[in-house]
Amino acid sequence: MLVFVLNAGSSSLKYQLINAETSELKASGLVERIGIDGILKHEVGENKKLTFELPIPTHKEAIELVLRILTNDETKVIDSIKEIQAIGHRVVHGGEYFKKSVLIDDDVVKKIENLIPLAPLHNPAHVLGIKICQELMPNVPNVATFDTAFHQTMPEENFLYAVPYGDYTEHHLRKYGFHGTSHYYVSNEAVKILNKKDSKIIVCHLGNGSSVCAVRDGKSISTSMGLTPLEGLIMGTRCGDIDAGVIPYLMEKKGLDTHQIINYLNKKSGILGVSGISSDLREVIKASNDGDKRSKITIEMLCSRIKKYLCSYAGLMHGVDAICFTAGIGENSDLIREKVCNGLDFMGIELDTEKNSIRKSGIREISKKTSKTKIYIIPTNEELVIAKDTFDLVKKK
Amino acid sequence: MLVFVLNAGSSSLKYQLINAETSELKASGLVERIGIDGILKHEVGENKKLTFELPIPTHKEAIELVLRILTNDETKVIDSIKEIQAIGHRVVHGGEYFKKSVLIDDDVVKKIENLIPLAPLHNPAHVLGIKICQELMPNVPNVATFDTAFHQTMPEENFLYAVPYGDYTEHHLRKYGFHGTSHYYVSNEAVKILNKKDSKIIVCHLGNGSSVCAVRDGKSISTSMGLTPLEGLIMGTRCGDIDAGVIPYLMEKKGLDTHQIINYLNKKSGILGVSGISSDLREVIKASNDGDKRSKITIEMLCSRIKKYLCSYAGLMHGVDAICFTAGIGENSDLIREKVCNGLDFMGIELDTEKNSIRKSGIREISKKTSKTKIYIIPTNEELVIAKDTFDLVKKK
Repeated sequence: MLVFVLNAGSSSLKYQLINAETSELKASGLVERIGIDGILKHEVGENKKLTFELPIPTHKEAIELVLRILTNDETKVIDSIKEIQAIGHRVVHGGEYFKKSVLIDDDVVKKIENLIPLAPLHNPAHVLGIKICQELMPNVPNVATFDTAFHQTMPEENFLYAVPYGDYTEHHLRKYGFHGTSHYYVSNEAVKILNKKDSKIIVCHLGNGSSVCAVRDGKSISTSMGLTPLEGLIMGTRCGDIDAGVIPYLMEKKGLDTHQIINYLNKKSGILGVSGISSDLREVIKASNDGDKRSKITIEMLCSRIKKYLCSYAGLMHGVDAICFTAGIGENSDLIREKVCNGLDFMGIELDTEKNSIRKSGIREISKKTSKTKIYIIPTNEELVIAKDTFDLVKKK
Repeated sequence: MLVFVLNAGSSSLKYQLINAETSELKASGLVERIGIDGILKHEVGENKKLTFELPIPTHKEAIELVLRILTNDETKVIDSIKEIQAIGHRVVHGGEYFKKSVLIDDDVVKKIENLIPLAPLHNPAHVLGIKICQELMPNVPNVATFDTAFHQTMPEENFLYAVPYGDYTEHHLRKYGFHGTSHYYVSNEAVKILNKKDSKIIVCHLGNGSSVCAVRDGKSISTSMGLTPLEGLIMGTRCGDIDAGVIPYLMEKKGLDTHQIINYLNKKSGILGVSGISSDLREVIKASNDGDKRSKITIEMLCSRIKKYLCSYAGLMHGVDAICFTAGIGENSDLIREKVCNGLDFMGIELDTEKNSIRKSGIREISKKTSKTKIYIIPTNEELVIAKDTFDLVKKK
C-alpha cells in the first residue's frame, strides 16, 4: 500500500511517499516559504535531487505541485495519484483525546481544532493539510498520528504540574510531551535488539528540537517536554528548563510583554542565545574548537542538561537497560554523546569512546562490553511509523 | 562572644542569642504579625517557653521588645544588652557581590538595597533590621550572612540559563540558589564524618521551602533553586520546576496578569495546590494514609522530583559519597526519605529502612553497611553558622 505521509507546518510541508508493506521510500521532499515566495526540494532515491524555486502562494498549491511532481515524466515515481491509497498526517497535539493514531473523520478534525490553544502554531496547519487532501483526493482515507500520543501512558504523578489540581481537570494543564512518534520508534527498535520484555530504555532525541523520554516496558513514563515544547533540554533556539520567576524579571528589564518574552525564550534563546553564534550546534562546536569561550560554555550547558535528565530517568526507573541516541545531533555528534555519558560508570553506563567516534549509518552499539547499560545510536524514522500506522488502520477499515 | 542573630522578614523576626565560642544557645524566638497585631514566642533552654500577645506596630518596637525580654527579670538571660557583642543578620540575596559573610558598613547596606529587585520580599526587611540594630545598639558591629553566598562557587555552565548571554552580563539573570547557609553547614558536617577531602555530597534541604545542592570538595557546584526560590523541588505552596509556557496559558485561562500568576505559583501551588488539603506535608501524609487519592499523588510527585534531582546531581559529580537529609521534612519524615532512596541500589545508594524509621535527635547514619553512598540525617543550624561567621569577622576587626 502506497502511503503519502504529510507534515504540514505554518509555511512549510514535509512529505514522503512510502510503500508501507515493504517500508520502501519512493520519494520525499520539503516545501518551504509557502505564501512568501516558495521553494521545493524533492528527492527520489539516493541520487536524484531536484530543487524548484517558484511562487507557491498557498498550501493547496503546494500539495498540488507535489502531486504533479510525483506523477510527472521527469520526476515520476507513480503513474497516477490514484496509486496513493492512504494519507498519513503528522499532528503535533492530540491532547488527551488521542492515545494512538486514528482514521480521520469530522469528529477527529474538530478535536484537532479544539486543541489549537495548546499548539497554536502547529494544529491549524495540520487541519489545513487534512482538508486540502480530502478535497484533492476525495476517496483516499486519511490517518492522523500524534506527537503526543505515545506519552499518554505517563502516570499521573509524572504528567501533573504542582499547581492547583483544578487547573488540570478544568484547563487540561499538564505535561503532554512531544516527539512521541520518534521516541516510540527508537525505543521499539531497542526493545527488539534487547529481546527483553520488562525493559528500561531512555531515548535522547537530540535535533533542533530535543527531548528525553523514559520508556518502561515499551511505554513512555516520563519525558522532558511539557505542556509546550519549551520545557526540558537546551535546544537550537529554546531555553528549555528555566525558573518561571525569570519571566516577570525579564519583562521588566527588557520592557516586553509576556507573549514577547515567551517568543524570546522560544526563538532567541538556547544554543543560539548562549553562544551568540548559531542555533546549529555544528557551527558552535566549530567555534568552540577555534577557542570561542561562549561556544564552549554552550556545549557544557547542553550536555550537562542531557546528562541530568538521563540520570534522573535512570533513577525513576530504578536502572536503565539501554540508552538510545537519535535525530540530527544524537546520531551524528560523537562529542555530545561522549560528554553526556562521561563519568557515569558508577551507575553502570560505560561508553566505548572508540566505537563512538566511528561514523557509520544504521543502528550501532557504542557501549563497552563491560557496560551494564547498552548504548545505541538508532536513526529515527517517524514517517515510517506514520505510514505503518496508516496502513494498519486503513487495512482494518 | 555573645552574638544576637537576627532574621528580619516583612512582618516577622526570628532571633537567637548564641555564645559563638561555645555554640551555646542562650535564648531564641519568633515575632510574627508585626504591624497587624503582634505575637512573640520566646524560648529559654528546653523548658521555658513564653508567648506574648500584644500590639507590635513596627519592626523597631519588635526588636526593642525582644531586647527587653532578654534582660528582664522574669525571662532574663543577660544583665544588660551591652553584653551583646555583635549582631549577625541573615540576608536572603547577596547577588554576585557577596561570596561570604561580611561586616556591615554603608556600602554593604547599599548593595543589599541594590539587590531588592532580585528579592523584593526579603531584602527590604533585612535592611530595616540592620538599620534598627545600628540605631538601638550603635557601638555593636553588624555582620551579614547571605543565603546565596555558598552557591557563588557554582561554575558558569551550572548557573547560566540558556537565554541570550547579554541577559546575564547586563541584567544579572542567572541561577543564584538559596538555603546556602544550611547547605554549607550540613555538607560541612558530612565532610567531617567522611573525613575525605575530595568529597561528593548531596544535601536535600526539605522544609516548607526546599532545595537540593551538589557539593563537591566543600563547594556548591549546582542547586535546584534559581534566580528566585520558585525553581526546583515541589514545596509547601511553590510549584518548583514548570514549563515557562504555562504562564501565558494560565493567564488566558484564568484571566490573571503575569505577576498574579507568579504569585499563584508561589502561594497557591505545590503541596497545597495538588493535595487541596494543606501546605503542611504532615497533614497530607495523614490524609493519604486515610485514603485521599490526591494526597497520595502529591507525595509521589514530591518524592519523584527529589529523586530526579538526587540522581542528576550524582551524575553531574560522577558519583556521590554521601546524601544528607535536613530541615523539617528531611529530618523527620522517614516516608519521604524512603521513597526518595528506593530503587537506587543500582547506583550504590542503599537505605537501611529499619535505621531510617527510628526517631532520634542529632546526626545519624541511615544507610546499609553495603551502601557505597552513605546516607545521613543531619539537623541544620543556620543560626550557628551566622553566629560563628559574625564572631570570626568581629574578632579580626
